[in-house]
Amino acid sequence: MSDGTPRPKVLILGGGFGGIGAARKLRKAPVDVMLVDRHDYHTFQPLLYQVATDTLDPETVGHPIRELVHGQDNLDFAQATISDIDLDARTVSFQDWEPQTYDYLVIGLGALAHFFGTPGAEEHSFPLYTLPHAIRLKEHLLRRFEAAAKDPSLADDGQLDVVIVGGGPTGVETAGALSELFHAVFPGDYPSLDLSAVRITLVEHGDRLLAMFDEGISEYTADTLRERQVTVRLGEKVAEIADDHVTLGSGETIRAGTTVWGAGLQPNPLATTLGVELVRGRVPVTEHLHLAHHPEVFVVGDLALTTDSVTGEVLPQLGSVALQAGEHVGVTIDRMERKHKDPHPFHYVDKGTMATIGRKAAVAVVPPHHITLTGRAAWAMWGAVHLALLTGGDSRMAALSNWFWSFTTHDRPSRVLIHPDDED
Amino acid sequence: MSDGTPRPKVLILGGGFGGIGAARKLRKAPVDVMLVDRHDYHTFQPLLYQVATDTLDPETVGHPIRELVHGQDNLDFAQATISDIDLDARTVSFQDWEPQTYDYLVIGLGALAHFFGTPGAEEHSFPLYTLPHAIRLKEHLLRRFEAAAKDPSLADDGQLDVVIVGGGPTGVETAGALSELFHAVFPGDYPSLDLSAVRITLVEHGDRLLAMFDEGISEYTADTLRERQVTVRLGEKVAEIADDHVTLGSGETIRAGTTVWGAGLQPNPLATTLGVELVRGRVPVTEHLHLAHHPEVFVVGDLALTTDSVTGEVLPQLGSVALQAGEHVGVTIDRMERKHKDPHPFHYVDKGTMATIGRKAAVAVVPPHHITLTGRAAWAMWGAVHLALLTGGDSRMAALSNWFWSFTTHDRPSRVLIHPDDED
Repeated sequence: MSDGTPRPKVLILGGGFGGIGAARKLRKAPVDVMLVDRHDYHTFQPLLYQVATDTLDPETVGHPIRELVHGQDNLDFAQATISDIDLDARTVSFQDWEPQTYDYLVIGLGALAHFFGTPGAEEHSFPLYTLPHAIRLKEHLLRRFEAAAKDPSLADDGQLDVVIVGGGPTGVETAGALSELFHAVFPGDYPSLDLSAVRITLVEHGDRLLAMFDEGISEYTADTLRERQVTVRLGEKVAEIADDHVTLGSGETIRAGTTVWGAGLQPNPLATTLGVELVRGRVPVTEHLHLAHHPEVFVVGDLALTTDSVTGEVLPQLGSVALQAGEHVGVTIDRMERKHKDPHPFHYVDKGTMATIGRKAAVAVVPPHHITLTGRAAWAMWGAVHLALLTGGDSRMAALSNWFWSFTTHDRPSRVLIHPDDED
Repeated sequence: MSDGTPRPKVLILGGGFGGIGAARKLRKAPVDVMLVDRHDYHTFQPLLYQVATDTLDPETVGHPIRELVHGQDNLDFAQATISDIDLDARTVSFQDWEPQTYDYLVIGLGALAHFFGTPGAEEHSFPLYTLPHAIRLKEHLLRRFEAAAKDPSLADDGQLDVVIVGGGPTGVETAGALSELFHAVFPGDYPSLDLSAVRITLVEHGDRLLAMFDEGISEYTADTLRERQVTVRLGEKVAEIADDHVTLGSGETIRAGTTVWGAGLQPNPLATTLGVELVRGRVPVTEHLHLAHHPEVFVVGDLALTTDSVTGEVLPQLGSVALQAGEHVGVTIDRMERKHKDPHPFHYVDKGTMATIGRKAAVAVVPPHHITLTGRAAWAMWGAVHLALLTGGDSRMAALSNWFWSFTTHDRPSRVLIHPDDED
């Protein structure tokens, strides 16, 4: 491919939706692309709660990044952990690799759970932002139930009860999936335990669930969760989290052997090294998605404070925004390097928003007419869309097989604790 | 079910083929069965090498033991780790559970890798007997390749080369599967590496591979592996294993960044507490599979020295022997407790022996006429039989999907390193 002239080097940090989107759109660009991630897999984050609640196997939601390399000659991948980004020297240093220079840098490093200083949250609650998070939550839940099978007094002490903090999509989807797990699957697994008394409580600070949707949808969601034996607490602040209970702002305590944290995000610590003042904990970017003083440095995904060039609105931290922003950056570099044209400003196309509340219940808003779907139709649509979005064909097949199995038999694929570090 | 009379308690230690076989055959017996394992999954050991070489996901080969409980009212399960077995008090103690008494005890605790005192083997080689073993080997291999992608000199130094010790089924099947992985899958994943120079060496102490088969099959196996670029070394002893090479008895060294140990088994240390003198490292049992002085204590599987009551031969440490022995114990207890009949002595029915050497190549011997199959026919039969043997329906579906995918596309399902203990 090379004619001897060195080609511009595009260094992409992070193999999430943003980084992958950028890499793919650079397929035909006369550049050398190096994609770096600390893991060798891309995480399909919208389905993490399904790993945590044992509906999907981790391998279905974590897809090999290297597979992307197969079909793209100008792309290479390295598994490495970043130690420093030097914008002036145009160099990124790594803990476990030699420093890499770049002509274009695309930063899509994502975010971390934000506990807002809530006492005990970091030690005792389970965030749900990465695949290791999802596996840890699943393993904790299974360990609680295995322990109670040996000592049923743990169930009486509320050690099987779960509190979920945050009524956004993560909290709602996790609550719905846990209700199914506890009421439809586990009674068969743990016949000696009385699971009818196990409580799932969803705590939301605001006055409704899924605040990005219309109020009617918020009500439908709360009603559906309550029908499924989830206690929904609105307008409640979490004051403290301990290993066996959660204390609300009112002083009320709720017993919980497991607390799931789905309440907020903070930027990757590397964001503070970019010499840019963060806004709401995110890195502000221009309408072309680059840093104001570094047109060669793009920031995409949850890390970026991205403003839509048409509506002027700050876009939410969603996988679909990250993917489109990443693709936009790829197209931008391709336009400049291959087509020698100026880039367009970024405009996000809302293709719909969905959340599932469990078997045969979901909510969806479909633009442009904001058609609202609830119930089985939304659930079926949710399944179809996510199946289409899963990165690779084999993941799609495995997900279909897992879902089909779960749907038809009410059983789950992999209720097991497999630890490579186990003694044997 | 209970009429107030306490029913005999059958305590089964170990959820492998032996323990599961016993539990299932007790379905109708008027007893209470408690199955205990340190893990919550049953391992389909014959396919461990497929997890290690990235053909199957771990969840396909590790099946939830609790699913067995669903259909069997007199069976319960506990995940616990044994600390002591007291045959006189008829009590088993656990590290993490209250002591359990029994009327019948079935011990199916399996074995551990045996390094025969080979220097460096324990520190530097990867056994392949458990699911954590398989995951550790897979992760080590992937880490070697990710490191070489960043520093290709590692490939030149032989850090991608693999030595496999032991020419039994584990060694042969692993060698064949690794050859496929290195020559058909990884070249696409790692385009910057020259993988044609990567060497796989299979070292066997005896003068032929798969010594349990006829010599013609041993020859076919060695020829097929050599065609697939595996170096087969027969009549060679391994003297020492280091982290970057293996030293043979002759003093010759072979470079290897990875050494797989498939050479031998030793009993679970608990076997030495049974007050029975071990024979060849195994616990001798009567023709009814119990201890000579404890007719209520049965030992099955790799831990037991089992003699066939018809042929008088000591049976090999195979999953099929463990399963039949476990089932025989279940039938024995059922006969005594429900049918009030004397038990039969144990006779193993050989339903055939198979090993696969990679895509479209396998060997099989089918009784009673010892029909020998090689090549594609044996490979197809191997697939069908293992599919039928996988414990649960969903594992079967996932395995079918994985295999189909692998076979039709030459690609693998899950080349990823997902660690729940990763920082994020």
